Amino acid sequence: MTKLAILGTGIVGQTLAARLQELGNEVMIGTRNVESTLAKTENDAMGFPPFKDWYQKNDDVQLGTFAQAASFGEMIFNCTNGHISLEVLKSAGEKNLKDKILIDVSNPLDFSNGFPPFLFVCNTDSLGEQIQNAFPLVKVVKTLNTMNAFLMVEPSKLAGSHHVFMSGNDAEAKASVKSILNSFGWLDKNIMDMGDITTARGTEMMLPMWIRLYGTLNNPMFNFHINTGL
Amino acid sequence: MTKLAILGTGIVGQTLAARLQELGNEVMIGTRNVESTLAKTENDAMGFPPFKDWYQKNDDVQLGTFAQAASFGEMIFNCTNGHISLEVLKSAGEKNLKDKILIDVSNPLDFSNGFPPFLFVCNTDSLGEQIQNAFPLVKVVKTLNTMNAFLMVEPSKLAGSHHVFMSGNDAEAKASVKSILNSFGWLDKNIMDMGDITTARGTEMMLPMWIRLYGTLNNPMFNFHINTGL
Repeated sequence: MTKLAILGTGIVGQTLAARLQELGNEVMIGTRNVESTLAKTENDAMGFPPFKDWYQKNDDVQLGTFAQAASFGEMIFNCTNGHISLEVLKSAGEKNLKDKILIDVSNPLDFSNGFPPFLFVCNTDSLGEQIQNAFPLVKVVKTLNTMNAFLMVEPSKLAGSHHVFMSGNDAEAKASVKSILNSFGWLDKNIMDMGDITTARGTEMMLPMWIRLYGTLNNPMFNFHINTGL
Repeated sequence: MTKLAILGTGIVGQTLAARLQELGNEVMIGTRNVESTLAKTENDAMGFPPFKDWYQKNDDVQLGTFAQAASFGEMIFNCTNGHISLEVLKSAGEKNLKDKILIDVSNPLDFSNGFPPFLFVCNTDSLGEQIQNAFPLVKVVKTLNTMNAFLMVEPSKLAGSHHVFMSGNDAEAKASVKSILNSFGWLDKNIMDMGDITTARGTEMMLPMWIRLYGTLNNPMFNFHINTGL
């Protein structure tokens, strides 16, 4: 049984937490303020029901502050909105993150000009790199950020072959993350190690295409497959 | 028999020209200066042999200036390096491009800081849009820019399903381009109309991922497939 932390109470955090708990891990979700998170009664900006509705059905998952969750977790998933990720990680506390694997699922989406969002960092930098640079003693592995949350944790929900990518500087950390991906159902052949954390530029820059495809297909249950003829 | 122009003498221009000629079209390649293009005897920056070697084997293709080719073509392919595309199109002449379909295959790659290249425009703008804005009377259709040249013109070279994307403001122009893609062997189900020319942001921003994948796979004969479970 591995102790895992999820930072972020949105649909990505909920989906990862539920699946990781189901797979026999011990999971704590971190949020800014536990009381106010549980006090919310309205749907969020994306139309999802309030966190407490989900939490009533998933009360085997623990809930704490960002710092409590980070301290609890042997590995930590960053499932916060990209524009607050660095601030959340600071509030989680460097001492609670140090030497641990941080699985960064976030994307640098900026909706301030409406839809479609643009990226607040891209091209010659990435959010994955910004997080790695801000926390040099943390082993950042960027992954899962190129698809819908339900496919992240259960790739077999989509028939046929499709890929998940990994970017990170630490080979051992990527091997550990690969084991988690395997536990979700990802086959080795569909897990693509892109290289160091700078390759997060590539995967984060797929988001504008993902968002347009979502508009074209009118359904989020799709994913990128890299066809190599094999 | 359709008269088609190809702007650019690189590997993309050569590959498209040869294939379009083979399919029964009449093709003229446009270059800045015909004499100096034919006078080059050294491999280009990417290690490809000089244009004249290719041209000796493909002399049914005509060769002219950018303006001659643009005037000749009923449709025009932009296969120039992205950083000179606007300048080349200006030299091709607005009157020679006006009311025609411009199939934009270029990408805004900047190699000035070495490898991997970055994009000199992205995120809130795209090269496709810059071209459309500079030539409002031209019907720009961005397509084919997300893959290797050999796959562009013969998708069956890669087993299994993979996609080509189209972005453009003019539905009729996209229908004409679709016919050309069909003639290359692209099946309707693998041609994805992404919407207006602003969706070129999405496909151009896939290039950093393409380049990293090329590094990871060590082979350019791969392509993106959008797995929708169908």
